[in-house]
Amino acid sequence: MNVTLVFIILNYIGIFVFALSGGILSARKHLDPFGAAVIGAVTGMGGGTMRDVLLGRLPVYWIDAPHYLLLALVGGVVGYYGSELIRGEEGARYRALIWADSAGLAVFCVLGAQAGLIAGAHWSIALVTGVMSAAFGGLVRDIILNDVPLILRADVYALAALFGALVYVGALEFGVPTGSAAVGAALAAFVLRGCAIIFKWSIPPIGRVD
Amino acid sequence: MNVTLVFIILNYIGIFVFALSGGILSARKHLDPFGAAVIGAVTGMGGGTMRDVLLGRLPVYWIDAPHYLLLALVGGVVGYYGSELIRGEEGARYRALIWADSAGLAVFCVLGAQAGLIAGAHWSIALVTGVMSAAFGGLVRDIILNDVPLILRADVYALAALFGALVYVGALEFGVPTGSAAVGAALAAFVLRGCAIIFKWSIPPIGRVD
Amino acid sequence: MNVTLVFIILNYIGIFVFALSGGILSARKHLDPFGAAVIGAVTGMGGGTMRDVLLGRLPVYWIDAPHYLLLALVGGVVGYYGSELIRGEEGARYRALIWADSAGLAVFCVLGAQAGLIAGAHWSIALVTGVMSAAFGGLVRDIILNDVPLILRADVYALAALFGALVYVGALEFGVPTGSAAVGAALAAFVLRGCAIIFKWSIPPIGRVD
Repeated sequence: MNVTLVFIILNYIGIFVFALSGGILSARKHLDPFGAAVIGAVTGMGGGTMRDVLLGRLPVYWIDAPHYLLLALVGGVVGYYGSELIRGEEGARYRALIWADSAGLAVFCVLGAQAGLIAGAHWSIALVTGVMSAAFGGLVRDIILNDVPLILRADVYALAALFGALVYVGALEFGVPTGSAAVGAALAAFVLRGCAIIFKWSIPPIGRVD
Repeated sequence: MNVTLVFIILNYIGIFVFALSGGILSARKHLDPFGAAVIGAVTGMGGGTMRDVLLGRLPVYWIDAPHYLLLALVGGVVGYYGSELIRGEEGARYRALIWADSAGLAVFCVLGAQAGLIAGAHWSIALVTGVMSAAFGGLVRDIILNDVPLILRADVYALAALFGALVYVGALEFGVPTGSAAVGAALAAFVLRGCAIIFKWSIPPIGRVD
Repeated sequence: MNVTLVFIILNYIGIFVFALSGGILSARKHLDPFGAAVIGAVTGMGGGTMRDVLLGRLPVYWIDAPHYLLLALVGGVVGYYGSELIRGEEGARYRALIWADSAGLAVFCVLGAQAGLIAGAHWSIALVTGVMSAAFGGLVRDIILNDVPLILRADVYALAALFGALVYVGALEFGVPTGSAAVGAALAAFVLRGCAIIFKWSIPPIGRVD
């Protein structure tokens, strides 16, 4: 399978699942459908937008490619109305939000690291662009909707994104083909984050409020 | 009347009324006058700044044009002290905030759409740059001042901005002269948002917290 | 001492102390160490990143210079674990946060103004890039961590940054050598902010909530 195609598909997946999470949270916060579509677009395209701005790849990627926007809007609306279907079961909607967010996180940490490497940045900086691409969309979603950012609530969140970016950069270093490295690293990040959700893994914080 | 002049005047109006809204909210939140001027500048120039960054028009427009900054600072201070004059009547200050914000929204959805079209973007993307330019300044104002974003409280908010951008893009498509299209679309957005405020129009949301 | 070296050292100091403040607040908010490192990086590099984006100096400065990132990460972790050592005394951690933030504010208002002048902006715009560089990192830190922004709580905050930028621009105008002007202006801003903290100076706000 063509490497470019792998990245295109990963990008579509990431945008859609992040947009889903934006739509679900919009439903929880009683926004109207238009608001949900806007939040879906911001969540789905926020991380990539931030990445492009910092790397100087302007105009940002979706300006010349309306289908990304369409995908994110559809994702937001699907998440919004879809969350209606599953709200019967207790906590189901919150779980759907968490898992959609995790899938987006897993994909975007790899895409962000890849963008950093392509821009000629040092591998340590590629880790940063990876973590930022993964975290930014969800962070903006939570800030706009006045929710406690998941990055603060979920212990293994930034760490899972860092892990995914590290696996990707490391795999390339060891000669793993780019496409396989990308898919494998995204899966690694998703598994780590997923285990943290299921088994309630956390890193002990220090300190109490004084 | 010259088309360029129409856009320049609309831009001045938009910056000033958004800055007013920033100054009014700063007074409600007990900031000092310097804080109000800063929030005025951020609210008045935030949307256009975001638009320029995403489209790659850097440095952003106000770097080379200090009079925009001056206008926004003055708007912030006028809103701050002006809101003192009207606080006698119950809820008057909040209403002034809402209406100043609505006027800014109406103007910037058109200016943002126009910027997108000039940058050669697809019309659907021009709608996005319109909505974003209209919503971003007020969103940042509300986030910094720790207020529930108007875009979440007001049902017909993102929708009014989308409507204004759509009227503008549509009018150009049907051959309406640019200047008339801009003024007409801004008025259309303002009337829609105004009616929503006066008649408490809203789009029914779905879902309850689970 | 070489002028360039003065700015490099000031930049290192500013990044480190802002990152410290991010780490301290992360400890107060019970983040894990990875979260603290991320918040440290965002706080330490946020202001300079914003400045570079608005001025069109892309990619932003830290993309090609991983040691800035390393410094900010270390600052965040040092602030996180260091705040543990001092939490015995009541309010000590909050005071450490306030002072680290003030030192960062003092340094970055000068660096931001300098960046504006180098970009050929009007002196009034250089004041804005100064205030923004000084305030942005801390603002993002407080917004992400869901704390009331210091810029809202501390009366002489934006004003101290403005003062530092003004002293710097004014000193250059009067022929003061660049390096001395930078150090002197940073000290001036720090002294003003420090006096405001110690003596609880504030500017009387107007208005009450209506």
